[in-house]
Amino acid sequence: MEDLEPFAGAPEDTREAIMKATYRALCEHGYAGLTISRIAEDFEKSKSLLYHHYDSKDELLLDFLSFMLGKFQRDVPGSEEDPASDRLDAVLEESLTHEGGLELLRAMTELRAQAAHDERFREHFMEHDRVFREGIVGILEAGIESGDFRDVDVEQVADFVFAALSGGMNQRATADPGPKTASLAELRWYVENRLRTD
Amino acid sequence: MEDLEPFAGAPEDTREAIMKATYRALCEHGYAGLTISRIAEDFEKSKSLLYHHYDSKDELLLDFLSFMLGKFQRDVPGSEEDPASDRLDAVLEESLTHEGGLELLRAMTELRAQAAHDERFREHFMEHDRVFREGIVGILEAGIESGDFRDVDVEQVADFVFAALSGGMNQRATADPGPKTASLAELRWYVENRLRTD
Repeated sequence: MEDLEPFAGAPEDTREAIMKATYRALCEHGYAGLTISRIAEDFEKSKSLLYHHYDSKDELLLDFLSFMLGKFQRDVPGSEEDPASDRLDAVLEESLTHEGGLELLRAMTELRAQAAHDERFREHFMEHDRVFREGIVGILEAGIESGDFRDVDVEQVADFVFAALSGGMNQRATADPGPKTASLAELRWYVENRLRTD
Repeated sequence: MEDLEPFAGAPEDTREAIMKATYRALCEHGYAGLTISRIAEDFEKSKSLLYHHYDSKDELLLDFLSFMLGKFQRDVPGSEEDPASDRLDAVLEESLTHEGGLELLRAMTELRAQAAHDERFREHFMEHDRVFREGIVGILEAGIESGDFRDVDVEQVADFVFAALSGGMNQRATADPGPKTASLAELRWYVENRLRTD
């Protein structure tokens, strides 16, 4: 569900350069060990530029989260012309078994946990969850339109599928990092029996 | 899945008194704002006693997590004599729609996120997840034994159900705190169609 290999190319502008440095520092030091100083170590331009843009570490991290969400919305994998069942299966498989991207998953888990006691982070993750659920709703609606899927309550199904995926990703980030093949098999049973018309 | 109203009675011994003070301080200040000093404010006995038992805040929190897991294992709600389908449904409903216990859910989410960059916390949550999955496996096995449930792969089904529940709880702790009634309805569809023999 997350873009698991961000910042592969050279940054296009200053903001993207700051975001790339933030990402690297977050993966290396974790939320607790992160400071603007440490982000600056990975940032080729001046440290004062970072302080000029951001008053605090949390303000920078909230901007990082918005940037990542925007990036995800632009870079959705696959094509809308692919069959809905293939698109949905790609989301399930990518979320639960992707071997790479564990560092990003762990960093996002730490940032998400800030929402437990920080309203600004909670507002971001409300929006984050809405965007991801809407992505699943879009696939479900396309499948119903094409006749591949039954005419289910798409909001309800999307809420459940997203809960199962985010639980699996959270478990990989914080306990056993191995692929969630058992959960993937059951989720595929659910899609087959709940959604598929054939 | 968590014991949502812990420490209702008076503490039975010093360790339980420390755990109760830790719980209160964690709910009030969150992980980042927590210090042994703040825990001591809620602890009737001396602060030096706390430092005597624990070298650091994390050591105390790891002991708190073990204590809570042991408490959960002792205080499983319901009776093993209840029908397996009722026991499973109680777990689903309690996990996804319980109105109380949001503070504990948030505190546990923050502690769990420490596992992203701390091996000791990761080891605890590996064990935590194992215990919760085994709890679900026990209910599934009882249901198969009694003929209420089909002879499914219990480990696989338990992994999936637990992922869906933990994802829903994580979302409540960090985004929309409302009951996950949509996810609960789909999970009930899954149990009805995947497990029930009648």
